Amino acid sequence: MRIALLQGPALTPDPEAALAAVADAAGRAAAAGARLLVTPEMSLTGYAIGADRVAELAEPEHGPLTDRVAAIAAEHGLAIAAGLPVRGAAGIANTVVVIDRDGTRLASYAKAHLYGDVDHDAFVPGDVGVVQFELDGLVVGVLICYDVEFPEAVRAHALAGTELLVVPTGLMDPYGHVGTVLVSARAYESQLFVAYANRTGSEGEFVYCGASCVIAPDGTELARAGRGEELVVADVDPAVLTASRRVNTHLADRRPELYLPENRA
Amino acid sequence: MRIALLQGPALTPDPEAALAAVADAAGRAAAAGARLLVTPEMSLTGYAIGADRVAELAEPEHGPLTDRVAAIAAEHGLAIAAGLPVRGAAGIANTVVVIDRDGTRLASYAKAHLYGDVDHDAFVPGDVGVVQFELDGLVVGVLICYDVEFPEAVRAHALAGTELLVVPTGLMDPYGHVGTVLVSARAYESQLFVAYANRTGSEGEFVYCGASCVIAPDGTELARAGRGEELVVADVDPAVLTASRRVNTHLADRRPELYLPENRA
Repeated sequence: MRIALLQGPALTPDPEAALAAVADAAGRAAAAGARLLVTPEMSLTGYAIGADRVAELAEPEHGPLTDRVAAIAAEHGLAIAAGLPVRGAAGIANTVVVIDRDGTRLASYAKAHLYGDVDHDAFVPGDVGVVQFELDGLVVGVLICYDVEFPEAVRAHALAGTELLVVPTGLMDPYGHVGTVLVSARAYESQLFVAYANRTGSEGEFVYCGASCVIAPDGTELARAGRGEELVVADVDPAVLTASRRVNTHLADRRPELYLPENRA
Repeated sequence: MRIALLQGPALTPDPEAALAAVADAAGRAAAAGARLLVTPEMSLTGYAIGADRVAELAEPEHGPLTDRVAAIAAEHGLAIAAGLPVRGAAGIANTVVVIDRDGTRLASYAKAHLYGDVDHDAFVPGDVGVVQFELDGLVVGVLICYDVEFPEAVRAHALAGTELLVVPTGLMDPYGHVGTVLVSARAYESQLFVAYANRTGSEGEFVYCGASCVIAPDGTELARAGRGEELVVADVDPAVLTASRRVNTHLADRRPELYLPENRA
């Protein structure tokens, strides 16, 4: 299955500009043969826009912004993962919604590990660790940004059967090693594909560092972007996953009983 | 606290050659001001030497080889972590023993995650996840090689208070990314120092890839060796750990309840 990541948009002064960027990327992704387009964290509204602006733009899970995404997905014939603030019973969550080309809402995931003031000021944390959907027979999971820094979160996905983990993110300087080191480690240690779609340019006090990537379970970088705007395209091949898991038997070799506080010398 | 890693010896035709290499390294490490010398996995006997040879060389936890290490530690005035096959009630374990300059046996750790035929043919797995000791006020933990590929094993150390994790290893081609990617990820995601001491040269069918390193909890490479023999020296500063943990709050930001199989969408 071919996937595409939109690294960008650099600036999202308003949702209309963001939707235009997503539509443009969807057209190019479809032309490249992609079945799924992944866009960055809060791709429809901007991320570091302040809690007041987040609250203004927040909508229910089925709202005008996601309806527009559904229309773009239908027009270009692929699934789209897009980020926005979603207002629920507990408050506003930093959310990624995945919508298929036929309008099916494949997944809605709320960021569980909130990062710094930018998240804590604006959002309530999600309370579900593993959200998955199936696309052309592949089990796809969703995490957002800081979530992926926790190996347990990715391990929970692997143990639940996730084969491709898509991670919209807003990674900024000086934390580039998260994208180059931690994300690569996650794919190998938990034996799954990871697609990490970062923002670029600057927003408020953040300078996003790009380096979006698709990492194979054997640790190979299938694609790695630079710092600027880019459409990243890569093929996620289940045969590669099977072959890698045969050699790299980490999931079977775990010893969970030794990771408990009770088991110490 | 200054530490030193012996990347080598390239060849260990017999324990006498290995002990000579450890003694030589201990002299250089002490001259450089090191308080602790870490040597590679199975540094006293060789690693890929076959199960029969392992059984021949195995000794009880207090045996002639570790007595020789104690003498070297006393002569040069520093603690030494050395690897050898230790015979216990359950069988022979791939073990690292740490002995201080005053003869104190600081720790004995048996590899818990066995790797491939080289381990499974020769060893029984250890059954204790977290083994620690204190050295000049620093809490030091021990893992061996494949153990460190499991983020849970390192996390268990961090949650148990380990500040410096020493990891004797025998990492071979084509798995170099374990040393450069996974080990760096461990230090950052679990907020501790990691000292990874690899073998070099070739042994049986293995070509060891070197790249021994000391990684700080902020992800900085304090030291990184090439492929050849080398004595790696680095300073492990508790103030760096405190400063890093203040900014990188991963240990506090975990959400263990979300990593359980029960919590899935």
